[in-house]
Amino acid sequence: MMRREELLKTGERLDDLQRNHCYIIQNPSKFCFGMDAVLLSGFAAVKPGERVLDIGTGTGIIPILLAAKTKGEHFTGLEIQKESADMAERSVIYNRLEEKISIVEGDIKEAEEFFSPASFHVVTTNPPYMIENHGLKNPGEPKAIARHEILCTLEDIVGKAAYLLVPGGRFYMVHRPFRLAEIIGTLLRYKLEPKRMRLVYPFADREPNMALLECHKGGKSRMRIEKPLILFSEPGCYTEEIKREYGF
Amino acid sequence: MMRREELLKTGERLDDLQRNHCYIIQNPSKFCFGMDAVLLSGFAAVKPGERVLDIGTGTGIIPILLAAKTKGEHFTGLEIQKESADMAERSVIYNRLEEKISIVEGDIKEAEEFFSPASFHVVTTNPPYMIENHGLKNPGEPKAIARHEILCTLEDIVGKAAYLLVPGGRFYMVHRPFRLAEIIGTLLRYKLEPKRMRLVYPFADREPNMALLECHKGGKSRMRIEKPLILFSEPGCYTEEIKREYGF
Repeated sequence: MMRREELLKTGERLDDLQRNHCYIIQNPSKFCFGMDAVLLSGFAAVKPGERVLDIGTGTGIIPILLAAKTKGEHFTGLEIQKESADMAERSVIYNRLEEKISIVEGDIKEAEEFFSPASFHVVTTNPPYMIENHGLKNPGEPKAIARHEILCTLEDIVGKAAYLLVPGGRFYMVHRPFRLAEIIGTLLRYKLEPKRMRLVYPFADREPNMALLECHKGGKSRMRIEKPLILFSEPGCYTEEIKREYGF
Repeated sequence: MMRREELLKTGERLDDLQRNHCYIIQNPSKFCFGMDAVLLSGFAAVKPGERVLDIGTGTGIIPILLAAKTKGEHFTGLEIQKESADMAERSVIYNRLEEKISIVEGDIKEAEEFFSPASFHVVTTNPPYMIENHGLKNPGEPKAIARHEILCTLEDIVGKAAYLLVPGGRFYMVHRPFRLAEIIGTLLRYKLEPKRMRLVYPFADREPNMALLECHKGGKSRMRIEKPLILFSEPGCYTEEIKREYGF
């Protein structure tokens, strides 16, 4: 195993993921993964032997967690930002997951240049939530690119996911509830049929702030909305489900 | 006020709606209104002076409740089943709501024959939930017609609602969560933009069994998913919100 001093660049730190002794490199002044990515990796199902692509992988949190918890054959993380892709690559090395995970630096809008059609069983994504650069001061910053649709739109991601999935393949996404109608409309246009949804509520008596979605390429129209996923039982105190399933 | 014996036909009963001293005539061997209609009438907002249409009104539960709780100018209940429309008509008379509520016996698929385009500010509906007559023994029965898409489809209702609403008019529907993707796809095709959704959960740790939706004709794409509406705190015991808001 590499030593920390060989691995970390200035401003970076190594965080324990509390799962299979996996760690991740992050730079808190740039962008750290959120609850969203962790919940998506718990919601997504990967079967033995499946090939998985994570679109906009950032520092690689989703492939690293999925490699730790599933028996998927191979995981690819695609990331447009060079610095994030570089951190993801070093996290893969640190965790000795080079045979399981590949990090590709590139733009999902040019997916055809990197990948063959119908080459993945599962596509996951924790995409930018906010439309364009509304109210944004520094659209070139890593956080802005991760959160706003500056370099790609919802439709770019859904369209390329449909192109890259095998027939019957599964698409998992976490997004904001306020865009749900647009999200479902876009998914249906690309024949990614929503089959399962779980809403995440910070507290039982609040509005949901995340929606977890599973879609099947070419699936029939009929979906399941699952029981609410509630994060906190009281301020600062995670619910039993979150503690049990995610180790928080 | 008419006396009961003048009002009720064989098999019918008069039920107290616990709201503004309103009553409703029902025949329990045919079809009684459910929690769905009551929750929709609580979810729907009708402003002073607005004209409202309820599609598939059955025994008139939704117009009667909305007339009792809002300052809408006028309510029309459209019902295809002669016997239900007749009961609704007699309930309107019993409640002395003839000036507020009109019951029209007719088929929503022929809406152009009864109503002018853009003639309602609000359209409500508690439509049949089940697709066609899957697993159905007696498709001619009143209950079957109320529950299955035998005489009209989701698309018939959404299409006619869009035709009958003024620009910016509001469409309120209660439906089953398993059809949510299809519902949203259909609403978007007819420019009824989903703006507000509330999911109804029998218990806090169960899957939702109803979805309440508000759509705006020609609205912009951005919606709000509200906090969960939970019916029971324990078996047989309604939650405080249900007791407070609905008087159960």
